[in-house]
Amino acid sequence: MGSKVESSKRLSVVSLAEGLLAGNRVVLGQAITLIESNKKEDRAVANQLIEKILPFSGNAIRIGITGAPGVGKSTFIEAFGKYITALGKKLAVLAIDPSSSKTKGSILGDKTRMENLAKNPRAFIRPTAAGPILGGVANHTKETILLCEAAGFDVIIVETVGVGQSETTVRQMVDFFLLLMLAGAGDKLQGIKKGIMEMADAIVITKADNENITQAARAKNEYQQALHLFEPATSGWMPTVLTSSALTNTGLKEIWAITEKYQEHVGANGYMKSCREEQDIAWFHSQLKWLIDQIVHNFISKKEIESFENKIKEKLISPILASEEIAEQIKNQIKIGS
Amino acid sequence: MGSKVESSKRLSVVSLAEGLLAGNRVVLGQAITLIESNKKEDRAVANQLIEKILPFSGNAIRIGITGAPGVGKSTFIEAFGKYITALGKKLAVLAIDPSSSKTKGSILGDKTRMENLAKNPRAFIRPTAAGPILGGVANHTKETILLCEAAGFDVIIVETVGVGQSETTVRQMVDFFLLLMLAGAGDKLQGIKKGIMEMADAIVITKADNENITQAARAKNEYQQALHLFEPATSGWMPTVLTSSALTNTGLKEIWAITEKYQEHVGANGYMKSCREEQDIAWFHSQLKWLIDQIVHNFISKKEIESFENKIKEKLISPILASEEIAEQIKNQIKIGS
Repeated sequence: MGSKVESSKRLSVVSLAEGLLAGNRVVLGQAITLIESNKKEDRAVANQLIEKILPFSGNAIRIGITGAPGVGKSTFIEAFGKYITALGKKLAVLAIDPSSSKTKGSILGDKTRMENLAKNPRAFIRPTAAGPILGGVANHTKETILLCEAAGFDVIIVETVGVGQSETTVRQMVDFFLLLMLAGAGDKLQGIKKGIMEMADAIVITKADNENITQAARAKNEYQQALHLFEPATSGWMPTVLTSSALTNTGLKEIWAITEKYQEHVGANGYMKSCREEQDIAWFHSQLKWLIDQIVHNFISKKEIESFENKIKEKLISPILASEEIAEQIKNQIKIGS
Repeated sequence: MGSKVESSKRLSVVSLAEGLLAGNRVVLGQAITLIESNKKEDRAVANQLIEKILPFSGNAIRIGITGAPGVGKSTFIEAFGKYITALGKKLAVLAIDPSSSKTKGSILGDKTRMENLAKNPRAFIRPTAAGPILGGVANHTKETILLCEAAGFDVIIVETVGVGQSETTVRQMVDFFLLLMLAGAGDKLQGIKKGIMEMADAIVITKADNENITQAARAKNEYQQALHLFEPATSGWMPTVLTSSALTNTGLKEIWAITEKYQEHVGANGYMKSCREEQDIAWFHSQLKWLIDQIVHNFISKKEIESFENKIKEKLISPILASEEIAEQIKNQIKIGS
């Protein structure tokens, strides 16, 4: 993930903001590193930076892409990214990797992933290690989107692996949510977390080439049928199922067209505006919850909570008594200032 | 919802527990009222009571039933309840009504609902007003389940309306989750919240009688197909779709058989045990969150948070600054005791 910006090299908020707005990628990288830092002094600078660039953010389409391991996410994003950049658009790809932590290093940081896209001057690829605190990272990712927008990117792709808890969080920071599925590989074996299918604005059946074409077409129909059973999204948008091949570049144009159609749809009916407002409120609550948790954990440690969990499992204490004991412990340490 | 137990009439924990264990319904009603009370002194007694009866709870099958308004939930539960009680089992029906609050009174308290079941000596029906704090109520419902079990009920049905947020919460306190759907009424119009279908252990197509029989059979196939697209539940259970008619009593036997088959399945593979353990941990965290929220709201009011939300919507403050300001406000009021 790279080392933190050292104090001596630390750029001022003003020069960071200026570099960002000029589209300087080195500055963008530094700004993201700053935002991911958990150091108190970095946090203060990061907040000032976000505050400064906020008026210049919001102009990209934010696309979430998820799918189980093996579905061909990197390959798809590489092909889709090539298509998008060929349209003259600047693309940022942010990959959330829930399995890694800062100390372990991110597997998504693997240099061989999306090699061609990484070399593309219109593309910017950045892994985001989820680390132990999902709430914190969610906010980092949200802020990274804003930084990329301020730096002039037109399309932001946020990639998740589709098996963790991060999808719901990512859904709350993107405009359009794309689920990649594999045909015929045993749908039930794909390990897609429940509820994810119902969050999708579009489903793409990947690897629709050669002998897979018929199977992909069949899967497309099945998923389209299944989607009809769900209540329509509050956006009024009916999710579409498409097929694609990164091998033959099939479907990329259609998928991009769908995202544009979606943008038009939600722009016209006002959903885009209300959705982003709600996302800001969710961001606020997520950030507030995280800050309050930090305060609370001054009074009760995670370890103590875990020890209560174990006692509950072993039926040594009831959930009610356990929670009351912790609350009492917190209350006894807190004095209300006058 | 009835008035709170007055101090003068308040029964001791010992006599409440004794009455409960003897299956006294009047005492059960009083105990539930006590548990639903938000008075501090009632809360303390309620906690002692739960602690006392906990060893005698856990022997019922807990069934969550949900479905959109109009699907015929009350009618179904009345017919299903008649079938269950005819087997010699004691049934408690707890209905969560998210639209009501204590002061407004519960629409589910309507005396005409499930009139026949209410007269049945083996059945006990109790509405639970969700009120403004879902977290608190979730815990009340969980505790009410335990009280009913201590009072000797074999089957607990928790009913929700399927359009709110309560389903996920209820899923975490029942063993088996049943979703009622209507065939041909325009599936997309049923207003079932996204994600609910994927939580179901069984789906029942209601009103499968007369001219609806064919449509119901077709809907059954469609839903069964759709369910095959989902990842199997961690219980290893494959959800079933059934049809039912409360008019002709069709399908009731089969639905009950499915719940028994499920119990066998999750009993044999150990899922039941681990699931209830996890539910206890979730109950603990939900209760702890609620208690911590109570503490936090000594330092910042809901009204203040709402005022920040409005400022965020109007772009007068960023979500980050807003959350930082609140956190600072809380910190400034808290002194760590030594």
